[in-house]
Formats: sequence, structure tokens, C-alpha cells
Amino acid sequence: MIKINDNYLKLPGSYLFSTIAKKVSAYQEEHPEAKIIRMGIGDVTLPLAPQIVKALHEAVDEMGQKDTFKGYAPDLGYSFLRETIAKADYQERGCRVDADEIFISDGAKCDCGNIQELFAADAKIAVCDPVYPVYVDSNVMAGRTGEYDPASETWSDVIYLPCTMDNGFFPELPKERPDLIYLCNPCNPTGTTWTKDQLKVWVDYANANDAVILYDAAYEAYITTPEVPHSIYEVEGARTCAIEFRSFSKNAGFTGVRLGFTVIPKDVKSGDASIHDMWARRHGTKYNGAPYIQQKAGMAVYSPEGRKEVKEQVAYYMRNARTLRDGLKEVGLKVVGGVDSPYVWLHTGEMTSWEFFDYLLDKAHVVGTPGSGFGPSGEHYFRLTGFGSYEATKKAVERIKSLA
Amino acid sequence: MIKINDNYLKLPGSYLFSTIAKKVSAYQEEHPEAKIIRMGIGDVTLPLAPQIVKALHEAVDEMGQKDTFKGYAPDLGYSFLRETIAKADYQERGCRVDADEIFISDGAKCDCGNIQELFAADAKIAVCDPVYPVYVDSNVMAGRTGEYDPASETWSDVIYLPCTMDNGFFPELPKERPDLIYLCNPCNPTGTTWTKDQLKVWVDYANANDAVILYDAAYEAYITTPEVPHSIYEVEGARTCAIEFRSFSKNAGFTGVRLGFTVIPKDVKSGDASIHDMWARRHGTKYNGAPYIQQKAGMAVYSPEGRKEVKEQVAYYMRNARTLRDGLKEVGLKVVGGVDSPYVWLHTGEMTSWEFFDYLLDKAHVVGTPGSGFGPSGEHYFRLTGFGSYEATKKAVERIKSLA
Repeated sequence: MIKINDNYLKLPGSYLFSTIAKKVSAYQEEHPEAKIIRMGIGDVTLPLAPQIVKALHEAVDEMGQKDTFKGYAPDLGYSFLRETIAKADYQERGCRVDADEIFISDGAKCDCGNIQELFAADAKIAVCDPVYPVYVDSNVMAGRTGEYDPASETWSDVIYLPCTMDNGFFPELPKERPDLIYLCNPCNPTGTTWTKDQLKVWVDYANANDAVILYDAAYEAYITTPEVPHSIYEVEGARTCAIEFRSFSKNAGFTGVRLGFTVIPKDVKSGDASIHDMWARRHGTKYNGAPYIQQKAGMAVYSPEGRKEVKEQVAYYMRNARTLRDGLKEVGLKVVGGVDSPYVWLHTGEMTSWEFFDYLLDKAHVVGTPGSGFGPSGEHYFRLTGFGSYEATKKAVERIKSLA
Repeated sequence: MIKINDNYLKLPGSYLFSTIAKKVSAYQEEHPEAKIIRMGIGDVTLPLAPQIVKALHEAVDEMGQKDTFKGYAPDLGYSFLRETIAKADYQERGCRVDADEIFISDGAKCDCGNIQELFAADAKIAVCDPVYPVYVDSNVMAGRTGEYDPASETWSDVIYLPCTMDNGFFPELPKERPDLIYLCNPCNPTGTTWTKDQLKVWVDYANANDAVILYDAAYEAYITTPEVPHSIYEVEGARTCAIEFRSFSKNAGFTGVRLGFTVIPKDVKSGDASIHDMWARRHGTKYNGAPYIQQKAGMAVYSPEGRKEVKEQVAYYMRNARTLRDGLKEVGLKVVGGVDSPYVWLHTGEMTSWEFFDYLLDKAHVVGTPGSGFGPSGEHYFRLTGFGSYEATKKAVERIKSLA
């Protein structure tokens, strides 16, 4: 027999969003008249902003001319973009992050999925529960998670950090020491956030325990609360223990364009070994650089006009999130999120998450994401996103209200 | 201490092409007057063809309009591209490959580097020697290669398949059974090829030994010899043992655009486990799809006008390769490649590969790639590429001739 990586076979079912897609298309086939409103997957819907379109066209023209054509990009990203990010996203916020600590990639999902490769095969992971499925699944594939228990929907070797209404979605420090701690702030899927003081608890814990925080800040652009940090490097001590993932998908609508970056400070060390250098080596060996065209589009996001345009898009989605949040609250549903995040997270009461999924699809023709798909503590919760159109969002809220 | 993947620390030195880049810029700094001709890295230099530029602009416009905007692409690629490839590259050549056996990605380097994840931690790899460094390095990172011996520049657990002038660059079947066999045809770095009959020997061996062939066909567009297959699936039996990697980088100049694909037939099985399904799961978990813009550009490569344009580019590079080959032969150098490949591979005689690198840089201001960087059997060889301009290629040949 061909010798495969058996860990892949341990993965239960299929990827959450594939399952949802299949269920929805089966329903649509049976009910061709149903006008389904999709608020499940966290995908943007507004077209690319004019400044970004302009930058893409200009970059394409450069690629079509002999004197300005670009072949292989630098593995770690063009300096123009790395320097712009270091300045705009970090130094101007008072964070010490240098341009060469920024690694440009084709998106935060790849980086979040690949980062675990840098760590030992027996490194123990801790994840918030509920959580973006990529963190756990990528570690399942690497054999770090032990055995799956279908009854509890948990892995024997994963440390779960429950985040529920009971603890205000701020997890307790674990009893068992983890090597890797995945944190997502603002949180996908709950839409909740942690303040700088709350994050400090985790940074101190990581530094005291030789753990690494893998900090997913993909939704940073949606933060409105002043106490919520835009980067983990706003927290003292983070430079020695934290890796930060960022994305252009949600702030600038790049889900189909693909661009992101990861910050690894040079101070994250394991003895003499530099995690920064290991990631650089991985990029050099298994990656061939983000496309020039995309990196130029990324630059447009930081231009004065570009900033204005993408801020308007974020504001548009946030109006949707508020509409959802307020509408659902009006009918007595328990809701969090929607303030610093495009996601609202509601309690499904007696119904399980998947029961609520089927109920909402059937009665309101609205698609959301079952909370249990994000982990056992997501059971009895449900995620809706503000990424649709305002009109569709209002309609969805009306339909849900009419069920009450 | 943070628990890292120690295998990374075993990697000797830095990635080959980074070392070359550093050496060249140091030389240029010391000799600012030297007009250096770069024939080292296999990067294209012609601008994107007009049909591709047109397709990129059109796709950008679609992304800028509400009705045609595209968010997340399907993880495995858009059907329009998968179907086009299946038809044009496989079915029209008489190969049975279905559209859903084609996985679109951001390039063959990532796929070649990531594919090893699907196999057991103790899977044994066999590589041609010399070979594209990514095959070995990605397995070093995964801990499959044992210990490095700096003296012989080999890994204790890798099966090397020497390809030299002595065996006509066709490797002998190994004495020890490998689980994974990396083959590259046309070969990077040697520019040599194997015929369908020669490949059949390996396909039969893999099927008889439960081994998987990882077949890198990135240079397929350069094949001119009728006996050399354009796909491994032209060889009977390959559907049960071979995975094929393809790229748009070298046939259409996409090194900075980033697009490639991997073919995994559903017949490659390990017991009940489908390698095809495992790769699909990996895409779903750790990848977020190739950008729409790039996939539309890929489509343009298959349009009648697009085909004509990219063929002209390949012909341009092949004239360079012939110019190199013929010129070097004229002065008595032993040369292979340059017939079905943009690469020529020459014997450096008494000099080591790196001695020849320094010699050529200093005396002719020509940069090539030392054969030893591709493996121990690459020692005393040197790679030059036809990817420069015709004028620079002619000049480089004149300079090399004048040294004789």
C-alpha cells in the first residue's frame, strides 16, 4: 500500500463551509422558488474599490511592457509593501515592527494553516472554543491532536478554551500548559473582542510558559471600541511570544484577490533558533511570492483615497451588522458581536445549531453558520454575517422577526 | 524553550538562488562597471502576451463591478479553467484526465513543496540527482531525510538517482524501494528528457512497488522531440501511481503572476484512501483558491490567439537555448539540453561548479547556476538558461567563446 499520512483520515466529515454549501444547494433544488439570503460564509460582496481597480490595471499594464515586466517576486514580498505596512499598521500605532518582520502572502488562511509546521510534532495546541476550523484541522493533519471523540466533538490532545456567554467570551487560562495558543481578535465566529488588558494576561502567560501566541487579526479593520487593540504588538511583551496574521480580505474585499501578511518579530526565539528565520526559509522553499499585481493593489489600500474608499466599505458592512444585531435583539434573541466585527453570534435557545440552521433555511430562507461547526462550545449558537447587501440584510431581519 | 520543528535546523546554508543573488550583488558592488548578464535563475523576461494582458484587464473590470465581482474562488479552481485544461492538455492528447482531477493553485513550487504532506512521516523519497532543490528541502522540513553529510552533500535517508553524462541522464532503478519518486521531465536543471518508453520503466516500477511518482512537468511547453511525452498520463499505468505538476510560469511567463495546477487521478489509492480526496481536503483547509483574475489569465493561454502568442514566446527562448548550446559546443564544451528545454547543462571540466561560477562571473560577467547546488551529481556541471533576451544571450556566448 502507498504510505499515506493517516492523520488526514481522522478528520471528521468535510470542511464546514462545504457542508453548508451542499445543504443549501439541495434545499434550493427542492424549493426553486425560495429566494435564499446567504449570510453563512464570511465572504464580501461589494466590488473592489476604484483605487484598487486602478492600481490593478496599472500593474497589469506594467506586466505587459518589456521595461516594467516583473518575473518572480521576492519570496517575502516587495519592499514597497512591507515598508508601507510596517509604517501604517504598526509604527504609526506605536508598535515596534520592522518591515523585514512582515511576510507578504496570498492570504491569512494559508499562513494560519501553514504556521504550525514550524513547531514540534508533539507541540500541544490550545484553541478558543468556538474557533475558526483551520487552526484545529491543520494540526489534525500534522498529527498533533490525538484522537477524535464524535460524542463530544473534541480531540483528545487539544486544549479547549471555552468562550461562551457565561464567561463573557474571555477564556480562562488553561490548567495544562500549551505550546501554541491560537487567539482571534476580533473573534471569528463570535464577533466578540478582548481589550488590551485582557490580551496582556495571555501575553504574560505565554512568555512565562514558553508558549507562542498565534494571533489572528483578520478582522482588525472592524474595531470601533478604543480599548480593543488593533495589533497584539500594542501589548507589552508580545514581541517575544506572538505571531500576528493579517488579511486584506475583509478590510479591502480581497477574498477573491488573495493577499495577506504575517508578522514574526525577530525576538520570538527558541534558544538560538529564530522563528522568523524559519518562516523565511519556509517561504523560500515552499512559496514563490505573492503576485506583483496583488501587491500593487495592496499598496492602493494605504493611499489616502484608497483608505477612504475601503473605510466606506467597512462602514457599509458594519451598518449591516448593527441592523442584524439590533433586529435580533428586538425579538428577544441573545446576541453578541456586531460592534467590532461584521459577525453577530446569537444563542439558538433550545434548538441545536444545526436544527436552527435547518429551521432558518426552511422558514426564513436565510443561511447562517451553525455554531457547533466551530467547536463544541459553539453548540446552541449561530453566526450571521454583515457581508451581504443592506437590502438583503434588512429583508433577512424582517423574515427572522416574523418568525418570532 | 519554545518547541520548534528541529528538522528546519538541519537545512544547510540558504536556498540556492538566494546565495547566488548575494554573490552577484557583492560582485556588482565591487565592480560597478561590469555589465552582468544573468542566466542563473530560471525566470522569464518577456512581458505578458497581449491576450493575457487583455484577459487580466477584463477580469479586473469584472472585480470592480457589483454584478460581476467575485469573492472567494472555489478552493479547487473555477470549472471554466479546470475543464479547459482537462480538454486541451489531456483529453486532446488521448489522456484520460477529468476536470475534477485538476487542482488549480498559485504555482507548481507550492504544490511540489506541499504534496509530501499527504504521505507518511517515514515515507522514503527518491530523487534524481541533480534535482530542483524544493523536492528534497520540503522533505527535510518534514523530517523524512535523516542526517546531512556535509562532505558528500547527501542526506542519509534519501535515495539518490544519479543522472549524468555517463548514464545519458536516465537513472537506474533504485536498489532500495522508495515510497515517493520525484521525476522532472523535461528535467530542471539538466534540460534533458526521457521518452515515453523510458518513463514506462518507472511507471511499471512504481505500480509494482506501491510507490507514487511525483512528476514535475513545468517545462512541458518546451518539448520538441516527438518521443518525449507531454504528460505522464500518456504512459499506460500512470493513472494509478502518478501525480503531475504543471505551471503557467514557463509556457506563458507567469512567474510573477502565479498560476499552476496539479493532476491527481482518482485511481491513485492507498487501500480505500483516495490521495485525490486528501489533496482536496488540504486545499479546503490550508488554501483559499487561486485568484479569479489569474484564472481568467490562465484561460487566455488556451484561446487560439493566446496559444499563438505564448508559442512565440517559447520559440524566442528556445532560439536562445539553441544559441547557447551551439556556441558552447563550438568551443569544445560538453553540453546537453536546449532541445526540449530552455536550459543547457554543461560540464565544467576540472573546475568545480562554484569555481566555474566565480570564473564565469569574473571573466565573462555571466551568471549561471552551479550544478552542485542541485545535488552531488551536479558537481562539475553548470546550468545556463535561455530566458534572457536574444541580444544578451548572443553577447554571453561571445564572451564565453572569447575565454576559450
